[in-house]
This record gives sequence, C-alpha cells and structure tokens, in this order.
Amino acid sequence: MATRIEVGILGATGVVGQRLVSRLEHHPWFRVTWVAASDRSAGRRYAEVPWRLGAPRPSGTSELTVEASVPGHAPRLVFSALDAEPARDIEPAFAQAGHLVVSNTRTSRMDPDVPLLIPEVNPDHLAVLTAQRQQRGWTGGIVTNPNCSTIFLAMALAPLRRFDLTRVVVTTEQAVSGAGHPGVASLDIMGNVVPYIAGEEEKLESEPLKVLGCYREGRVVPHEAVISAQTTRVAVVDGHTGAASVALGEPTSVAEIVDAWRSFQGPDEVRKLPTAPSRPIVYLDAPDRPQPRLDVDAGDGMVVHIGRLRPCPALGYKFVFLGHNTIRGAAGAAILNGELLKAKGYL
Amino acid sequence: MATRIEVGILGATGVVGQRLVSRLEHHPWFRVTWVAASDRSAGRRYAEVPWRLGAPRPSGTSELTVEASVPGHAPRLVFSALDAEPARDIEPAFAQAGHLVVSNTRTSRMDPDVPLLIPEVNPDHLAVLTAQRQQRGWTGGIVTNPNCSTIFLAMALAPLRRFDLTRVVVTTEQAVSGAGHPGVASLDIMGNVVPYIAGEEEKLESEPLKVLGCYREGRVVPHEAVISAQTTRVAVVDGHTGAASVALGEPTSVAEIVDAWRSFQGPDEVRKLPTAPSRPIVYLDAPDRPQPRLDVDAGDGMVVHIGRLRPCPALGYKFVFLGHNTIRGAAGAAILNGELLKAKGYL
Amino acid sequence: MATRIEVGILGATGVVGQRLVSRLEHHPWFRVTWVAASDRSAGRRYAEVPWRLGAPRPSGTSELTVEASVPGHAPRLVFSALDAEPARDIEPAFAQAGHLVVSNTRTSRMDPDVPLLIPEVNPDHLAVLTAQRQQRGWTGGIVTNPNCSTIFLAMALAPLRRFDLTRVVVTTEQAVSGAGHPGVASLDIMGNVVPYIAGEEEKLESEPLKVLGCYREGRVVPHEAVISAQTTRVAVVDGHTGAASVALGEPTSVAEIVDAWRSFQGPDEVRKLPTAPSRPIVYLDAPDRPQPRLDVDAGDGMVVHIGRLRPCPALGYKFVFLGHNTIRGAAGAAILNGELLKAKGYL
Amino acid sequence: MATRIEVGILGATGVVGQRLVSRLEHHPWFRVTWVAASDRSAGRRYAEVPWRLGAPRPSGTSELTVEASVPGHAPRLVFSALDAEPARDIEPAFAQAGHLVVSNTRTSRMDPDVPLLIPEVNPDHLAVLTAQRQQRGWTGGIVTNPNCSTIFLAMALAPLRRFDLTRVVVTTEQAVSGAGHPGVASLDIMGNVVPYIAGEEEKLESEPLKVLGCYREGRVVPHEAVISAQTTRVAVVDGHTGAASVALGEPTSVAEIVDAWRSFQGPDEVRKLPTAPSRPIVYLDAPDRPQPRLDVDAGDGMVVHIGRLRPCPALGYKFVFLGHNTIRGAAGAAILNGELLKAKGYL
Repeated sequence: MATRIEVGILGATGVVGQRLVSRLEHHPWFRVTWVAASDRSAGRRYAEVPWRLGAPRPSGTSELTVEASVPGHAPRLVFSALDAEPARDIEPAFAQAGHLVVSNTRTSRMDPDVPLLIPEVNPDHLAVLTAQRQQRGWTGGIVTNPNCSTIFLAMALAPLRRFDLTRVVVTTEQAVSGAGHPGVASLDIMGNVVPYIAGEEEKLESEPLKVLGCYREGRVVPHEAVISAQTTRVAVVDGHTGAASVALGEPTSVAEIVDAWRSFQGPDEVRKLPTAPSRPIVYLDAPDRPQPRLDVDAGDGMVVHIGRLRPCPALGYKFVFLGHNTIRGAAGAAILNGELLKAKGYL
Repeated sequence: MATRIEVGILGATGVVGQRLVSRLEHHPWFRVTWVAASDRSAGRRYAEVPWRLGAPRPSGTSELTVEASVPGHAPRLVFSALDAEPARDIEPAFAQAGHLVVSNTRTSRMDPDVPLLIPEVNPDHLAVLTAQRQQRGWTGGIVTNPNCSTIFLAMALAPLRRFDLTRVVVTTEQAVSGAGHPGVASLDIMGNVVPYIAGEEEKLESEPLKVLGCYREGRVVPHEAVISAQTTRVAVVDGHTGAASVALGEPTSVAEIVDAWRSFQGPDEVRKLPTAPSRPIVYLDAPDRPQPRLDVDAGDGMVVHIGRLRPCPALGYKFVFLGHNTIRGAAGAAILNGELLKAKGYL
Repeated sequence: MATRIEVGILGATGVVGQRLVSRLEHHPWFRVTWVAASDRSAGRRYAEVPWRLGAPRPSGTSELTVEASVPGHAPRLVFSALDAEPARDIEPAFAQAGHLVVSNTRTSRMDPDVPLLIPEVNPDHLAVLTAQRQQRGWTGGIVTNPNCSTIFLAMALAPLRRFDLTRVVVTTEQAVSGAGHPGVASLDIMGNVVPYIAGEEEKLESEPLKVLGCYREGRVVPHEAVISAQTTRVAVVDGHTGAASVALGEPTSVAEIVDAWRSFQGPDEVRKLPTAPSRPIVYLDAPDRPQPRLDVDAGDGMVVHIGRLRPCPALGYKFVFLGHNTIRGAAGAAILNGELLKAKGYL
Repeated sequence: MATRIEVGILGATGVVGQRLVSRLEHHPWFRVTWVAASDRSAGRRYAEVPWRLGAPRPSGTSELTVEASVPGHAPRLVFSALDAEPARDIEPAFAQAGHLVVSNTRTSRMDPDVPLLIPEVNPDHLAVLTAQRQQRGWTGGIVTNPNCSTIFLAMALAPLRRFDLTRVVVTTEQAVSGAGHPGVASLDIMGNVVPYIAGEEEKLESEPLKVLGCYREGRVVPHEAVISAQTTRVAVVDGHTGAASVALGEPTSVAEIVDAWRSFQGPDEVRKLPTAPSRPIVYLDAPDRPQPRLDVDAGDGMVVHIGRLRPCPALGYKFVFLGHNTIRGAAGAAILNGELLKAKGYL
C-alpha cells in the first residue's frame, strides 16, 4: 500500500467523530493523524476519551493527543463532525487557512456556494467549490454532506426524477444515535415515540431539493418537487426508517421503479471509490423489510434499503426506506466525499 | 345503584378480553357474569387464567368459570374480543340465538348491514341493525367498532369533513399490545421498527370511509375521500401514534381546524354515556406532543390526542395523533357501543 | 376537610420534585403553596416547567411561581428533592431558619444526629431529631428517607431480624427514572445492562444497617449484619428489582418467613397515616413475580413486592423484591415521613 | 485450503441453528452440507426459512433442502441445536447410527457418560466418550456443551479453583435471544425484568460443578463448591450478564485474581483450534464494564468478559461477567467442541 494521506478530525470525541475515526482505521487512502475537540477534552490522550460505539475502539489513534480546534498543525484534509454552533466559526477558519473541510454539519449546507454532495447522485455539484474559493478568497474550502434522513430520501428519490417527481410526503422514524451522546434522555424515549425533532423537518424538506437539483454555470438550481416531512424519534439505536408517498408526472409501474432503484449507480469514477457500495440502493422483496435490526449493517452500512413499493391511492406510489444514520447518514457520507475530492484531484 | 345488567365476554382470556373485564369491574350499568374462551381454557376458574395487564386483576370475576363459546346460558348482551377466525361462526351463532353481540373483531365490520360505530361520530348508523335483523332473521344482532388505528384516524378526521376532506396520507407507529399476547416476539421488535402489519393498511384505508359516511334509507354511503396508509410496528407497549397529511377542498386555517377538534363532541345522548369522555379530542399545544408515555393514559384512555397541526406543503395540513389501542381502540370502544345500545333502548 | 397545612418543595422541577407535587395534589393534610428550584428556573410559572411524568400535571400548583431556594417565605414544612451538592448548603440553611426539612437527598442521611426513617420500620428513630436541634442550635431540623434501593431492601429485611439476620448478598436491576432527567442517556441503556451506578453500592451496604439499628439514648446503634451489593442499571422506566440471598442465625422455614412478611406492619400510629399502605409488604405466590410492568403501580406504588422465596444453598434463603423507585423509593417515602412528623406533633 | 469436512445441522431453522450455519459458512475445517428441522419445515429450501439474525443469511447453504431429522444421509459429524424434547430420541438415534452428535441441548448433559465440555477448561473430560460408546454400544456418540450461562460462569470460575473455591452466589440478567424465536413475548419483557427462567437456575447450580470437576478412571468427579443462582430475563437482544460473589478458602488478592483470569488459557492443542480465542477471558478495567452493547461482539463473540472485581464483605470477592449467549454460549461453543473432536482424532 502506498503512503496514506494524513487527515484530521474536528469534533473527534462525539458519536459521529468516533465513527469517522473507527471507519478510517483501515482506510486504503486516508490515515488519521490529528484529532481535535472542544477545550474540555483538548490535551487528553485520545485513548482516554469515553468510547460510545459498539465497534471496538481503534488502536491506531490511541496515542494521539486531542488538539484544540484551531488550524495550523492539522493536515490539509479535515473531516468535521462539529456541532452546528462551533462549526460556524471553526470550519471557515480552517478553510481560510487552506484546509479542505469535509463537513457533516448543517451550518453551511444550504449556502449557495457550498457543495451539498452525495457522490452517487450529484458529484458534478462539486464544481461549486471553485466559486466558493473565488468569492471567499480561500485556498481551502468547505464541502458538505446532507443531513442523515436527507441522504436516504434523496438517494431513494434520485432514480425517480426520470418519472417527473412532483410531490413527496414522508414520515421518518429516527434512531437515537442521530442525536449524539448524551443526546436523547432514556426517560424520554424508552417505550415511546417522540413526534418531533428540532429543525429536522426543515432540513428534510429543503436539502434534498438542492441535492437533486442541476448544476448550471457556477450554481445549483434546486429540483422543483415539493416535500412534506414529519420526523419522529423512536427507540432504535442505529437506523432511520422512512415511509414515503410520491407523486410522479410520468406514468410508470412498480416493476419500472424497482428496476430504476436496482440499476441506480453513480458515474464510473464514483463507483471506484474505496467505500462506495457496488449498488447504492438495495431493494428487498420481503413484505416486512427493511428493518433496522436485520438490515442496517448490511453493505457495511453504506447502502440505502428500500422495500414495500406499491401504489399509493392518494399520490401515486409509496414505499419504505432505511439507512444507517451514523454511517451512510454521517461519517460514511463524509468519508465518501473525501474520497471524491481526492479522485477529482482536489488534494 | 340500580341492578346492573348482566353481560358476557367472548374471548375473555386475551389482552382485549382482559381489558373488557377490567374496565367493566366497576361499570355503573353492566356487570360481567359470564366469560368464555377457547376450549383450551374452558372449565378453568377465571382467576387461574394468566393475567396480561399492568392494571390489577379484577376481583369480581375471579370465581367465574370460563365457559365454552356457545350461546344458551350467556346474558343477552355479549362483548366479543374473539380472534377473527373463530368469530366468523361464533358471533352469528350468538346473534341468531338472540344475543346482542358488541364485537371488537374485524370479521363483520365491512358487511353492509352491520353497524361500524364510533358513538361520537356516527351513532345514527346504529339504525342499520334493523335491516340486519330483518335480512338475517335474527332476534339478536352484531354491532362492531372499527380497528384501533381506524378509530383514532376517523375521530381526527370527523371534524374535518366540514372543510371538504378529499385525501389523507397517514403513517402509523403502532404498539405491540395491538397484536395481543404472545403477539409480537421480543426478538422482532426490541430496538427495531417493523414496517408491516398484516391486513392493517387495508383496514385503515377502508373502515374510516364507512364510519365517516352517511346513513341513508337503511344503508351507509361511504365517505368519498381517499386514504393511503403505511402502518409500522414500534417498541411501545400501549398507544398507536399516527402522522397524517390531509387535503381539504375548502379554505381554512390552523386556528379553525384546532377549534373544530376542540369543540367536537357527539350528540347529547352520547355525551351522557358513562364512559364517554367529556371532550373526545384533546389538542395539545406543546411542539413535541402527543407521546405514548406521557399522554396515552389521560382521559382514562378514551380520548384521542392530537398535536403539531401545521401546513403540509404537499397536501394542505398535517398533524400527529395518538390513542390508547386496547382502550379507546378496542375494549373501551366496545363498551361505549354497548352503552349506546342501552341508551337507544336496544337492551 | 379541615384546612390543609401549607408545605413547600425544594427541587420542585426534577423528576422526584414533580412526583412530590403530583402526589400532594390531593393530599388530605398537606397543600403545596411554595415551589423552589435552581436559579435557572426561578421566576417561571410552575406550569411552564417541562413535565416529566406519565401522570398528568397537577392543576393546583400551575399558578405558583418557581422561587429561589432560600428560606423566608417558605412554609414551615419543606420537602426536599434537591441534588446532593446544592442540598449541602440549602437544607441546613432552611433548618436553621426554622423549617422542618423532609429530605430525599443523600447528603445528611448518615449523619449521626439525622433520623433516617422508614415509618413502618423505625419510627422511634425520629427521636434523634431532638439531639440534632440541640447540637446544631436549630429551631427547624432535617429528617431523611433512605436511598430508593435501601428502602426496598430494608423493608424486606426488617421482618427477618427476628431470625438473626447476619449476612446479605444482593444484586439490583434499577430503573432509569432513579437517575432523574435527563439522567441516563438512551444510547447507554437501550437494549443494555450497565453494571455500575456511582455511589449506589456504598449506600445499599450502609444505609439499611442504620435503618435496621436500635435507638438508644439519643443515638442509633446500627444493625450488625453485613451487606454486599452489586447494583446495575436496566432498561426499565420505573421499578427497582433486587435479588437477595440472606444468612439467618435462627432456624426457620419458607412458611415462617412468608408469614413474617405478610404480617409485617408499623405501629398503630403509622398504620393510620394517610398514605401508609395497609400492608407494606406484598408477597406474591406466582413463580415469576414480582415484575416492574405488572406490579410496580400496585398499592399506589407504596408497597414492596416480594416473591420467589426459596432456600439458598450458599447462604440460607433467597428471594426477589421490587419497589417503585420514585414513589415508595423517593417522593412517597418523604411524604410518609412528613405525615409521621405531623402525627408525632412536630408541626 | 484442503477439502473441508462435511457436517450436518439438526434444528437448523431455530436461532441457534441459524447461528451454527452462519458461523460455519467460512469455517476452515467444516462445511455444512446437510440441514434438518422438524417436519413442518422439512422439504423447503433453506433459503426460504425465515432468517432471524442481524448477521446476513449465508449464501453457501441457500440451495440445501431442509431434511427430516433422521440419520442415514447425514454426514458423520452433526451439530445439534434441537429443543430438549425432540433431542431425547433424535440424538441417540444419530449416535447409534454412527454419527458424532455435538449437541447444544440440555437433554444429555448431566448423563455420567456424556462429556460436558468447555475446551479451554476440561478437554480431558472428552475421554468419557469411550465409556459412553462401550456402555451404549454406539459407533457414534454424543458430546455436549453446557447451558449458556453455565459456560460464562464456569469459565470465570475455572481459574479460581486454585484459590479453593467453596461458595458462589450469582444473579444473571439474560438476553431474550436465549429463549429462541418467537421465545419471549414483547409484551412480557419490554421495559421489564422477569425474575424467572424455567429450569435455568437448576442448570446453573449443577452444570458448572461437572465442568469444573476432575476426570478419574472413566468418570467425572464433580467439583465440591456450592452454587446458588437467581436468573432473570431483561430487555437485551444478545448477551447474558452475571453478578457473582465467591468465597475462596485460600487467601489471595484482587491483583492475583485478575492475573489468574488474564493468563488463563487452554492447553496448547486447544489454543490452536480455529475458533478458539487467543485469550478466553478478557478482564476490563473500566468501572462500568462489561456491558452487552459495548462488549458482547468483541473477540468474535467467543470470549468471556469480566470486570469490577472487588472485595465482597459477605463472601470474599465479587465481580461482573458477560458472554454472547448464542455464540460462546451456544453455537460457538458447539463448533469449538467439534473442532476439539477433530483435533483429538475422533473424526
């Protein structure tokens, strides 16, 4: 194996940051040599930070010292799992200092000059980065992935654009790991459903339209469909489930839609990325799938599972989808974006 | 207290049957004097049957012997919590033998000559019972309540008819007690969402239209709205949650709809029934309600909670609703129907 | 009803504080007229504080303003649900200012001059309060109830003292509500067992010995038994379960021990307290009881359930016990202590 | 890789049977070529049987037809995950017909001429098989592994024999997968603790003594320690936790015991078995470990995790242990026994 590219992690002590570190442990291209977190953790050995994942703590980063979240000694490529509030200042500071920040944070996602990427869906949107650098006078830059639920919905909807997608009604049942740690109090969610996640519906109604939009002359023209979302929290550890109904302008059939999903894949250069799944969408025929417990870890957590496609008497068609929220919906999404940056020659 | 009317319970050993016995223990009008179950349990003392509810086992029925499910010695009024398959033969046999069967079972619900009742919504549909008796030559009869989810959705939709309800898209998150005992295996649902409940979506797409329809000349003309349902099972003990979007033909506002819900009530004779809630619908203003753990037991389990009403960009308005599936959605619904029968002079 | 005595609540916004307010709503002797909490909540209407219990929010206290935790305008009798740290200064300040503080907090429990009370077990220990006032020069005073698990274990052990109790080995499975809100993170406990609760084993190994000890000449001589505890957290909302083995110096039998539990009760003046259960210990004969879901709410949450008594080949006898941790184990315990103070003429 | 030995699975459609098939999919020595189940499933393709594990369904056995549970065409080595009742006749029938039955079932475990094996602990007990064959006139034979909880407890106790182990008091918190599928009803265990598992305590009090005993002249002399067990069911999917106190006749220290665990391993020929963990016992230093969610999958599910060793004031020392009940406690245990049979030349 050739020398791996050194990368850093902002927000390395949270649940998504730990997923990043864990998934990069044996990455063929990248090697984590720098981890940063809030002042509270800075200065500790990374091995001393409480570990939140069922997956074992990676050994390769044990001896790193948790750094303060300031540029300087960080590698050029930095993955960010920061919370939204600190990200507002920290990510631009790194971009200005010449770092390429691949961010999982919502802060900059909807900025017109920030790419909001799902490599299989809209890799061409990365071109917006050029405008970003020019306008902001940066030598680095910020590239983002969408919110977890958005990624799963946008991937499910991407192949439906050919049938003239006009309206979407979606209800999600989201896992507690999406709220980080400590996140959701056990008293609030055990044996319960909480029909509200702050800010989540707004993201799910807007971000997919940017992802599904067209790149034209330095900017993204959003898709014109209308999305209505209800997002709920359920007592699941990992895996966001969604139940969607879609209206399609073009006549089609269950068989055609399933075929569109099963044959969906990114362009050749995306398919070759190290962590890109061979088929990004897995359609399951069983009538009671997908389910978090049975399906969420399949495809190394990087695929979106879909099932139960059938006519919707109110809109057109309806189906159920599922994705791993801290892998495909967060850490894995950011890593795939980092791989795209390298494949496109940005590093 | 005047002498209470003797009533019987078919299917008295299941979860809904036990709820019936438990809720009738101190009922002002009715007294359980006869319990029946499958041959497996027949002959045992009712006190020996395994008790499934958190509520304590009622003492008044301890000494009853579990009878076989045949008419004869049963009281005239019989509540049925039978499974669908045995109900097919047993309920008509009781009706023919002169018993009034108030059934929670799906078997006869959609028969044109069987009333499908929610007393606050369509008490006039009880008139169908006359046609039933004539056509079938019965001295008794069968009266049904809808499926649990249907009751909550139909109650939420009833006040919206005035705004010309045309389309409904609904996703439910249903509790395991809805499947009885043993019902859902713990391995299948702990930390999981199962996006399929056999037969449930069909009921939720058809039964509300019968309930919301108009009684005309001996029959019910169904409501013309279209309902699309996705029903899922979640790790909740009691309480079905639903997320609905509705299209309304008439212009209206959030304030008007909330007012329609809050002011909704049945006719005077229904409001006076012993277990009828003073307000059948409770609208909650908090942004994260209703929730099963916090709300399901309020109003003695007989109200439908609604919250989060807001515009739906795809259809019109959207909201969340919740009901107690084994009380308002089953045992309590049947008891209220029994009370309606008495109030209307059928006993 | 005669005029009710005004009482105050310290720590009124936490889970135990809310239980206190909820259970005092219809209390025959006491009426909550004053609620206090940390500076963060002070000044808000009590109705605006987020409500954490499944039980409905009581209406009688809605209009109270949350006060700062300083004496002065508080009533003479004050129940404290403070956290241990703030209790260290606040509770003595109230006692010095003439308030009788009935505390659920651990801070002062093991002080030699502070009564650690379970009214059915050691009401005579209240006499220690006299020494406390003299030594500290207080016109008020502090009275405490034990830790939740201690209460259940001490009640189960109290009737065994007659058989010369010498050793106890106990493992607990404790509910998340014991940690308050937000308390245990959902990611940490869903589908999991955490075999450690900070400080809990120390309390469970020491507090019962003080409770079970003898009052002699102004002080309590602890019981001489040895207790070894392992305390674990499980995914239960309310209800601490314990599995105990005991060594007894006197020969006895299963029948005698069960009889000792079933006949156990406090002195006459305790039995007449408004919230004292008629029988503090309920022994269940079924082989698989007690269970939190089926038993925890019985007896209004004020009884300790015991079951499965059988010989222990290693020590002597073994059994399972269960109690409601925020009722009998916290709020209900403090209220019972408050009632004892009134019955004994301390108010 | 050399040709793999063909093996069969009895009870291949249950949870443990599926674990066996899943774990043998890529086994270096064995290849599943024959699967059998009850008459209900016989004749179906194995790919059609409902799959219960989160791990993906193995592809190598998809095309096998589920056979009836009769010898004849089965391979010489057969793993059995049968229920206890059918095992009573089926396992001896296979042994008589010349098959080596490596059984996970309790039926024959305590028979004096049946080896009850944990390869790291008592591989020499396999010698009992010779007596079994002679006495029963079999060309095959039956070899068993202990009950899941027993395996974890016996492995934890094995290194303590050197300190003169005399008494053990243990409470377990066991996962629902231990009861198979459908097994425990969700209504019975969600948010609950069930303090009873039929037959489990008897096994946990007797089986470890056989495992820890000495082989002498054709038979096993059981260990003389006394074990007292309380076994409870909790809402965990995989992973049995236990809290144990032990009395030791020899003086020792925490450091010595931890060292005994960490250095514990089987004889050389056992250490080389393909699925034997390099260290069978992992001692964790963190104060709140082991936990099912964080630890159960470590070491490929084949290690026993121990933590929290500290003095027990009532007995001597106490600690917490954890094992994966369907891997090290069932399927993985049987496979390791199968490997031992091959290594010892029995195939």
